[in-house]
Amino acid sequence: MLLHLSTWPEVESYLTHRRAIILPIGSTEQHGPTGLIGTDIITAQAIAEEVGRRTDTLVGPGIPVGMAHHHMGFPGSMTLRPSTLIQVVRDYVVSLTAHGFRDVLFINGHGGNMSSLDAAFYEIYEQARLAHGEAAPPVRCEVCHWFLLPAVVALQRELYGDREGHHATPSEVAVTQHVYPKSIKIAHLDPNPGQADFFRDWRDFRDRFPDGRMGSDPSLATPKDGERFLHAAAAEIVARHGDFLNGV
Amino acid sequence: MLLHLSTWPEVESYLTHRRAIILPIGSTEQHGPTGLIGTDIITAQAIAEEVGRRTDTLVGPGIPVGMAHHHMGFPGSMTLRPSTLIQVVRDYVVSLTAHGFRDVLFINGHGGNMSSLDAAFYEIYEQARLAHGEAAPPVRCEVCHWFLLPAVVALQRELYGDREGHHATPSEVAVTQHVYPKSIKIAHLDPNPGQADFFRDWRDFRDRFPDGRMGSDPSLATPKDGERFLHAAAAEIVARHGDFLNGV
Amino acid sequence: MLLHLSTWPEVESYLTHRRAIILPIGSTEQHGPTGLIGTDIITAQAIAEEVGRRTDTLVGPGIPVGMAHHHMGFPGSMTLRPSTLIQVVRDYVVSLTAHGFRDVLFINGHGGNMSSLDAAFYEIYEQARLAHGEAAPPVRCEVCHWFLLPAVVALQRELYGDREGHHATPSEVAVTQHVYPKSIKIAHLDPNPGQADFFRDWRDFRDRFPDGRMGSDPSLATPKDGERFLHAAAAEIVARHGDFLNGV
Amino acid sequence: MLLHLSTWPEVESYLTHRRAIILPIGSTEQHGPTGLIGTDIITAQAIAEEVGRRTDTLVGPGIPVGMAHHHMGFPGSMTLRPSTLIQVVRDYVVSLTAHGFRDVLFINGHGGNMSSLDAAFYEIYEQARLAHGEAAPPVRCEVCHWFLLPAVVALQRELYGDREGHHATPSEVAVTQHVYPKSIKIAHLDPNPGQADFFRDWRDFRDRFPDGRMGSDPSLATPKDGERFLHAAAAEIVARHGDFLNGV
Amino acid sequence: MLLHLSTWPEVESYLTHRRAIILPIGSTEQHGPTGLIGTDIITAQAIAEEVGRRTDTLVGPGIPVGMAHHHMGFPGSMTLRPSTLIQVVRDYVVSLTAHGFRDVLFINGHGGNMSSLDAAFYEIYEQARLAHGEAAPPVRCEVCHWFLLPAVVALQRELYGDREGHHATPSEVAVTQHVYPKSIKIAHLDPNPGQADFFRDWRDFRDRFPDGRMGSDPSLATPKDGERFLHAAAAEIVARHGDFLNGV
Amino acid sequence: MLLHLSTWPEVESYLTHRRAIILPIGSTEQHGPTGLIGTDIITAQAIAEEVGRRTDTLVGPGIPVGMAHHHMGFPGSMTLRPSTLIQVVRDYVVSLTAHGFRDVLFINGHGGNMSSLDAAFYEIYEQARLAHGEAAPPVRCEVCHWFLLPAVVALQRELYGDREGHHATPSEVAVTQHVYPKSIKIAHLDPNPGQADFFRDWRDFRDRFPDGRMGSDPSLATPKDGERFLHAAAAEIVARHGDFLNGV
Repeated sequence: MLLHLSTWPEVESYLTHRRAIILPIGSTEQHGPTGLIGTDIITAQAIAEEVGRRTDTLVGPGIPVGMAHHHMGFPGSMTLRPSTLIQVVRDYVVSLTAHGFRDVLFINGHGGNMSSLDAAFYEIYEQARLAHGEAAPPVRCEVCHWFLLPAVVALQRELYGDREGHHATPSEVAVTQHVYPKSIKIAHLDPNPGQADFFRDWRDFRDRFPDGRMGSDPSLATPKDGERFLHAAAAEIVARHGDFLNGV
Repeated sequence: MLLHLSTWPEVESYLTHRRAIILPIGSTEQHGPTGLIGTDIITAQAIAEEVGRRTDTLVGPGIPVGMAHHHMGFPGSMTLRPSTLIQVVRDYVVSLTAHGFRDVLFINGHGGNMSSLDAAFYEIYEQARLAHGEAAPPVRCEVCHWFLLPAVVALQRELYGDREGHHATPSEVAVTQHVYPKSIKIAHLDPNPGQADFFRDWRDFRDRFPDGRMGSDPSLATPKDGERFLHAAAAEIVARHGDFLNGV
Repeated sequence: MLLHLSTWPEVESYLTHRRAIILPIGSTEQHGPTGLIGTDIITAQAIAEEVGRRTDTLVGPGIPVGMAHHHMGFPGSMTLRPSTLIQVVRDYVVSLTAHGFRDVLFINGHGGNMSSLDAAFYEIYEQARLAHGEAAPPVRCEVCHWFLLPAVVALQRELYGDREGHHATPSEVAVTQHVYPKSIKIAHLDPNPGQADFFRDWRDFRDRFPDGRMGSDPSLATPKDGERFLHAAAAEIVARHGDFLNGV
Repeated sequence: MLLHLSTWPEVESYLTHRRAIILPIGSTEQHGPTGLIGTDIITAQAIAEEVGRRTDTLVGPGIPVGMAHHHMGFPGSMTLRPSTLIQVVRDYVVSLTAHGFRDVLFINGHGGNMSSLDAAFYEIYEQARLAHGEAAPPVRCEVCHWFLLPAVVALQRELYGDREGHHATPSEVAVTQHVYPKSIKIAHLDPNPGQADFFRDWRDFRDRFPDGRMGSDPSLATPKDGERFLHAAAAEIVARHGDFLNGV
Repeated sequence: MLLHLSTWPEVESYLTHRRAIILPIGSTEQHGPTGLIGTDIITAQAIAEEVGRRTDTLVGPGIPVGMAHHHMGFPGSMTLRPSTLIQVVRDYVVSLTAHGFRDVLFINGHGGNMSSLDAAFYEIYEQARLAHGEAAPPVRCEVCHWFLLPAVVALQRELYGDREGHHATPSEVAVTQHVYPKSIKIAHLDPNPGQADFFRDWRDFRDRFPDGRMGSDPSLATPKDGERFLHAAAAEIVARHGDFLNGV
Repeated sequence: MLLHLSTWPEVESYLTHRRAIILPIGSTEQHGPTGLIGTDIITAQAIAEEVGRRTDTLVGPGIPVGMAHHHMGFPGSMTLRPSTLIQVVRDYVVSLTAHGFRDVLFINGHGGNMSSLDAAFYEIYEQARLAHGEAAPPVRCEVCHWFLLPAVVALQRELYGDREGHHATPSEVAVTQHVYPKSIKIAHLDPNPGQADFFRDWRDFRDRFPDGRMGSDPSLATPKDGERFLHAAAAEIVARHGDFLNGV
């Protein structure tokens, strides 16, 4: 069930027996010479919808632009400041909890969002405490970074070994190929992409990773792999967060 | 050309000859008993993509949740505070202009966003002036509220007359039926929906418009009408904003 | 009844039977070679006071500096950022509603304030909802842009035709001449002022409108005209907003 | 010379030889049973204009609503939060310095504004340092609290002795009587007003000072006294801040 | 009793009979060629702890970095913007009052913090009023600037006369020598330090006070003097604020 | 070298050959029946100073109150909102980099600070990019969470096994015992503390962990252990971050 394709009476009906909602959050940023700029929201959205289907949980609107400062050295990348992203997450959550939603699961496709999401949850909890004290209605925020799930990491290793890398990876590219098979891009890929395992600001990132990839070889990706990642992620999310989504 | 389905080298190449980008902005809010909660972003996105196709202009990520305070009396509605929406619009625009984009056209599907968008443009301009004075790089923000375009209004009148109403209208519902024909909803519609021509806060809105419609009869909508609205809107946007998109 | 010339017991007494207040909002910005920099607050203030007299409604303090970014290319112009103006409007309104005022009518003399005012109203409503939910005390904010009132537009047309223009207009200058007859300014006016019907940032504005006028001929203004505008505006505001001011 | 009664070419001309501007700041708050709610802005405005006349300095728009939280227990009082007032002061100042003003003298009529004004000056200086470093254009902010000037205090003592008190004082009431002789109010005044010399929040203030006066006897005020205070204040401000206003 | 050396059950027990807490606030900024950069927090902390001992009052964590914009011309100085400091003070206070603390006494070692502290108190009170109205739990904030206490000023005069100066003074340096006898610094001191009695921004400060001292001769300081200042300050604070700390 | 015990000429001299600074960040929050409320800042401070000694690096002021919302159910706990903490970290860093510091290493004693710190670093980088673009001076922020260092974890396991737990752990308590041997607390400890491995808001935390401990047995702690943890942490930080501190 997708919020944007539902009517308000349908949501009203859903809320009579369920209190959970899934929100995909991604990013709009470079993913190397062949990765789509929307990779992180495309993957988060697809996995969120699959989890929604498997658990009959409502899936709400995504956050397509996340915190991607470090990618701003590449044309087309966009970023929210962490302070803005925190307010957006807050407004999403408090809009929903006013209607009776209580359990909000973010499915996140982008490492750069992690800290802002976590900070936002505490901003939400603290503002509720300050405004309402013990009388504050219960809110439970949770996040799943799909690309870090053990089942996903195992599959990355199995399919790509060290060539998975850390950004513009074949696993995330594969998911986008499965979702948008007409948007598979081909480009020359330097066999020796930037290999550093950390970075600082946007200049530093581009210095270390000249074409945007962090040690990855996205030419290995196939749409079929993407389908496997999608289902592996969804299955593990159901296993891990299913109780949460059921209000337990 | 869609930003989320592009790579950074493709954007780099685009920027060698173009400086425009189109950004859809909508809302996630009730649209009556049969209208989709995502109506405003669905319509804005579809029209934006059509304009992008006709003008070879890049279309960036949407803003799916807008300022919809007044709809918060209906389950499933979400809202950003105006102060949050202003920061989001600002971050979108300043992310893009750093790469050399200069002309940003928002295609807006929701009346409630109008003032925050306009306020955001001046926040952007004023911050640029304060930070950089005359040296500030040029930025041009423009917005088109597609549902107010004369060609669209004429078609509303022709097809639906007074039963177009002001919210959850057959015209916008028709566009969503064209885009998502499998999500056409049927429900009993009170033949006398709320008719007031204004409202104040979320309580007042629900008092005046008990099922969320503002004087509209969305049962008149058809997917075919939706296609006509989509093309009427796109054609007029090209006529009105084509020069802007070409940097004139 | 003017708030600044009242005592608190007088306000206490007023609140036993009335819940409305009028707040003028203007701007401090260039109005061409002969228009006063305070034109927008002078006109809003005068009209607000006249409406107050006619309806026995309290008139509160004005907001003399508004959102006038686009005029910052001319010496003496001042502006609040939209984000600041929104907070100011919010603080004015929540100060008043705490005392039992409920109906707040802004009389606005400046187009640049429109979006910030509207955004501020929703910021106020949304913060009330978030803090207090259904228990939030009722607040009704309304705004009247006097220069757009049909009766005023009709008089503009009758007296000045096309030479009314869009900024530094003879109608607003006339009102200031009526209020401050000793401050009537004479200067050479280029017979062909800038004629564009839109503008973007402060640089763009000055490029299009080199002396600050937008197609207007303020030399047509007379104090007598000003008096007519003042009364035409006040009469129409009473007709349109009288019920609101009476709590209906 | 008053900014609101000037044109932009007049300001442009002024700026060829002067860089100073005077800004009145007051409050909209209870001043006891007979004091006007606008007392603090009325007095600040009158004194600012007199100083402007004596020194040929431009006087800009006032800030009519200040930080008056502690008076919110009395109907009609209004307040900005300190955080809002700081942004307003900042926007006033940075608007002006962009045109070439450098020396900004606030004439303050309200004790509650002191800390926000001082905080705002450092917010302005620090933001300039962060944005522009050593290249930041020079800005000089200064404030004069007229009611604390030695000449004023001496006159308070001479005319009223201990019955001057600390709020809703005969001296400030006298100035308003001089400016608005038709708005002189008469009411029964308890001969023993609240006498505490401090207070905390708005509840505490009303507990200590039941009718709003802090130990004052405003029945002593006369318009003639008001004229003396006005001139005593203006003369001393010229003596103390004249060099500053002349750019020394 | 020091909060950082207590356990939560000890605080719980304390709160059964006391509602006061002392918070030291200082600064991290240059104090001339021989003064420690931590002078203001060191002195505030030492005096706060002494007052805590004498009155059996809990002493909470300090605020080691204050508002010191004007010292930013000297390496090692740090500053919070006033807007940040206000939020920090707010968060400290509202954290504590949620547990039942009501009376919060700041002991301040730095003039630059005065206005932000005062503004913060009103921000706290006003937010409480807006959120909870008359039901807001009582909060009492107070501040003592130890270096302005009459007993301290008398001792400054007695020991150092005019050579006390206004910044990097022998009295504050003496207290740090008493607390950190191993960190007594020796350096050549120009016998004619900057003597101006005011300053504006950071550039202006360094221009007027080239080595950071404001007319002071810290070479006069001795650890023994420091001990006297510490006890003089503590004794007077107990005398002045003892009732407050006891909830009277 | 400690900033608060240094003079500005000493810092100036340091900056001729070094660009690094260490900043401890902790929290003020409950640490179970026997743990000190200041545990996290005490440990971070002690380790920071030890690292400073070993590497001749300047150690700046700590942040004693962090993000500890989840501990607010226990008296004496304090918290900054994430949004406040982000601004504090930003102000610390931009104060220092203006003097020529470039490499800022936070030594963090509290898990709740992680996300706000990371968010703050990107807020800093992004604001620098927006204000100065490629011309922005280089800033490098890094953080070390000492309690997660492999050498520390190994020692936790060796000394305490499963009884280390996750909050109010014997390892952190041991460090505070080493630093403050006179503040070792004894209290009855339930042998079965709360064992959940996660929590949400402050109510949920207290429900799961009734005495504040997360599965830990702090009675195992000894001052001697604390000394070992201190040196193990410092040695590993030097090994891991030594190059960073030397500007490599």
